[in-house]
Amino acid sequence: MEKKLEELKTRLLEANDLTMASAVLNWDQTTYMPPGGAAARGRQMATLGRLAHEKFTDPATGKLLDELQPYVETLPYDHDDAALVRVTRRQYEQQTKVPGDLLSAFLEHSAESYQVWAKARPENDFTAVAPYLEKNIDYSRQIANCFPGYDHIADPLIDFADQGMKAESVRALFAELRQELVPLVQRITAQSEADDSCLHQPYPENKQLAFGQKAIEAYGYDFTRGRQDKTHHPFMTKFSWGDVRITTRVKENDLSEALFSTLHESGHAMYEQGVAQIYDGTPLGGGTSAGVHESQSRLWENQVGRSRMFWQHYYPQLQAMFPEQLQGVALDTFYRAINKVQRSLIRTDADEVTYNLHVMIRFDLELDLLEGKLAVHDLPEAWHGRYQHDLGLHAPDDRDGVMQDVHWYAGTVGGVFQGYTLGNIMSALFFNQALRAHPEIPTEITQGQFGTLHRWLKQNIYQHGSKFTANELVEQITGAPLTIKPYMQYLYGKYGELYAL
Amino acid sequence: MEKKLEELKTRLLEANDLTMASAVLNWDQTTYMPPGGAAARGRQMATLGRLAHEKFTDPATGKLLDELQPYVETLPYDHDDAALVRVTRRQYEQQTKVPGDLLSAFLEHSAESYQVWAKARPENDFTAVAPYLEKNIDYSRQIANCFPGYDHIADPLIDFADQGMKAESVRALFAELRQELVPLVQRITAQSEADDSCLHQPYPENKQLAFGQKAIEAYGYDFTRGRQDKTHHPFMTKFSWGDVRITTRVKENDLSEALFSTLHESGHAMYEQGVAQIYDGTPLGGGTSAGVHESQSRLWENQVGRSRMFWQHYYPQLQAMFPEQLQGVALDTFYRAINKVQRSLIRTDADEVTYNLHVMIRFDLELDLLEGKLAVHDLPEAWHGRYQHDLGLHAPDDRDGVMQDVHWYAGTVGGVFQGYTLGNIMSALFFNQALRAHPEIPTEITQGQFGTLHRWLKQNIYQHGSKFTANELVEQITGAPLTIKPYMQYLYGKYGELYAL
Repeated sequence: MEKKLEELKTRLLEANDLTMASAVLNWDQTTYMPPGGAAARGRQMATLGRLAHEKFTDPATGKLLDELQPYVETLPYDHDDAALVRVTRRQYEQQTKVPGDLLSAFLEHSAESYQVWAKARPENDFTAVAPYLEKNIDYSRQIANCFPGYDHIADPLIDFADQGMKAESVRALFAELRQELVPLVQRITAQSEADDSCLHQPYPENKQLAFGQKAIEAYGYDFTRGRQDKTHHPFMTKFSWGDVRITTRVKENDLSEALFSTLHESGHAMYEQGVAQIYDGTPLGGGTSAGVHESQSRLWENQVGRSRMFWQHYYPQLQAMFPEQLQGVALDTFYRAINKVQRSLIRTDADEVTYNLHVMIRFDLELDLLEGKLAVHDLPEAWHGRYQHDLGLHAPDDRDGVMQDVHWYAGTVGGVFQGYTLGNIMSALFFNQALRAHPEIPTEITQGQFGTLHRWLKQNIYQHGSKFTANELVEQITGAPLTIKPYMQYLYGKYGELYAL
Repeated sequence: MEKKLEELKTRLLEANDLTMASAVLNWDQTTYMPPGGAAARGRQMATLGRLAHEKFTDPATGKLLDELQPYVETLPYDHDDAALVRVTRRQYEQQTKVPGDLLSAFLEHSAESYQVWAKARPENDFTAVAPYLEKNIDYSRQIANCFPGYDHIADPLIDFADQGMKAESVRALFAELRQELVPLVQRITAQSEADDSCLHQPYPENKQLAFGQKAIEAYGYDFTRGRQDKTHHPFMTKFSWGDVRITTRVKENDLSEALFSTLHESGHAMYEQGVAQIYDGTPLGGGTSAGVHESQSRLWENQVGRSRMFWQHYYPQLQAMFPEQLQGVALDTFYRAINKVQRSLIRTDADEVTYNLHVMIRFDLELDLLEGKLAVHDLPEAWHGRYQHDLGLHAPDDRDGVMQDVHWYAGTVGGVFQGYTLGNIMSALFFNQALRAHPEIPTEITQGQFGTLHRWLKQNIYQHGSKFTANELVEQITGAPLTIKPYMQYLYGKYGELYAL
């Protein structure tokens, strides 16, 4: 068994090396690659992706998994070997159950669909993308149907990113959340808008970057195992346990852009840096789900990085770095500015309170599309109707309506959006639990110290990598299933005080 | 045949994608990778290298080559298809004739040998490396013996890097060169040393980089298909026709370090950027030999970049950029400084005139080692003897004697050093021929224009990639075999004037 386990790990490591190499090529493409490199780079990454897939889905992998099954059934659930075989089998099935022909046809279609969307969006031409979207929905259904036995056609798609979550349970959770959020947003936006002009002054780029890097170093992001570069869209990427990088985008006239994207990506990165080193190069060696990943980026961005506690320590330092811009701006003014709530049309620009409304609209609509309850030609109106109802807004066009996000046009319809809001819900759940275990955390944060919080997260979440699912982690940590209560308590507490509700 | 050719190209492209991906990982490793990434990165590169080798040496490749042979035999020598099959077969044989076991054993040994050398050199402990060197010589002989039919045991090793060159012909060429160089160096170094103190002042790094980049942009290095970064050792690397990068190293107190390494690497890079785009991703899509490659780096570094013509145009700009450092320094003083000749112990620090003496000492000694005429324990004394004779110097130890270069300790003994001096010889040969074809080139250089020269090189050398060997290029361009005459004329002309010989 020892030998078979080693053989499995060797096979997995080879596939992993190819995947990680492709990630390096992608990082280079978005950071430093000269324009002339684009054509060959796309092909090189496709080659690496194809070979990684071939290596991973080699029938020999499946055979080894079968041979190891009797052994791991004798082990406790949380034994490393049991977890390795369990998680590898799950990924193996995900990658082998979709026939190669279907996968290729889908990838080819979605590449084309993306091109059409990129052209049609600025032209506000939904008619152009509609047939592609219809086909994407059809492919999404076909892919889901490769995993029979589901309750809802979206379940297999959701399960890819957020194992164990199901359309019905997520829908119920989201309905509850919406019931709380819609009136909260109404009460907040009935008041006068917060003044965030202090954030919109010229802030030199190098100082913005220096400040963000200092903050995340204090958080616990390990720069000897990572680095930060600039890209068009911020992201986190991992090449190995020892090399987990983040990127950011700087706007000279918007202090929040680089700062909060840095704090956000550092959360993703600390999760990956915190996975037990022995899992590196195996399917256990990464964050367990989209939702849990997002819970960490949001925790460090919002629960910590937009808290009064954090800025009690850091605001004087920020003022010292930007005296011209912030000398006359009180901490309270700054704190209100970075937590400004406003109804807006664009998801990616939304604040902490309204953000989930955007996500949940998409989630409900994609379920309707997959179920066949909503036809593509009725989608724009359904979109506007929901925005009117939930956010009290009506987009002037489809460009900033149903065409604003790339997701549906360049991938499956279904399976992605829920992770963002699940992440927000879990961020409060986990933060709350860390505070219960260590009531000294808030005081530490006001002193610019994050060690206790970071250690708790590492101990309870990060180190496990993909060993436990999101639901298992939530059960282990809180002793109960996922609930929105701590998240709503957090929002009511923070925004109740800010807006004297 | 069309189909078989396509199949061959597809196979080659896949191997090429893996090799290029590995080059990206290597570039990243030397430029931006955080220290924590090192362990996994080594393994990832090894995986890519192994898979590229597997893909390239797949028997299916050999079968396709055999099937295509009758077809290409009907084609003229310089037909693209004929060249593709010819050059691919050569590489295929190089990679398949050495048994896998021998190759692995050699690579493992040389990795260990490198570690031992890296430790032993600072400790001046030749005894520690001697047994490893002996084994490296033995492996080098074994590898050479995989290619029977040679005249000299070093021939197959030389042929890897400089196809068509042989130990005896190179030895004869070098003997001729040494006969000219030894007295020339004696005559120059009998005079008082040039004053190069103007180069050793504080020069801010960013300005040094800006100046070098401006110069190579004028040369014709295409920054939309390349970029420059900083590394510990300067190098050129290629990821595709559209992405050919260079690196440099900056010393604040030595203006020549970054400047001339930039000009040098730009020559390598313009060669690769100039290869016909249709060859990209095939064995034709790269420079043809180590010697021809070096001829281009040396041509742009020395024939152009250390010429009075070049500085007639650029020196006023350099002075304007560094007024404090160079205001009072005359062009002639600067020109003498960048062409200072001195006898020195270290090859990599050597000037244009003495450099080849260092190389030829190594070449002769490695032939003696391979032939068994010289034993490893007699090598240090042989080294000192040759340095005394050729350069009039005696190293105080082995650290700066026989242990100064990594080559013999981390690779084959034989097959590498000759390329440096062949490159110098060819650089003058090609430059001379370009000037014959276009007598306006010197005037253009004094005006900071390099288009005619660059076009001539592209037309006659770069575009062909690996289609022709070094000897074929020399024959095509000069109508005669390789000769040292233009190189000695160049040195006599330039240094005769500088030192009033």
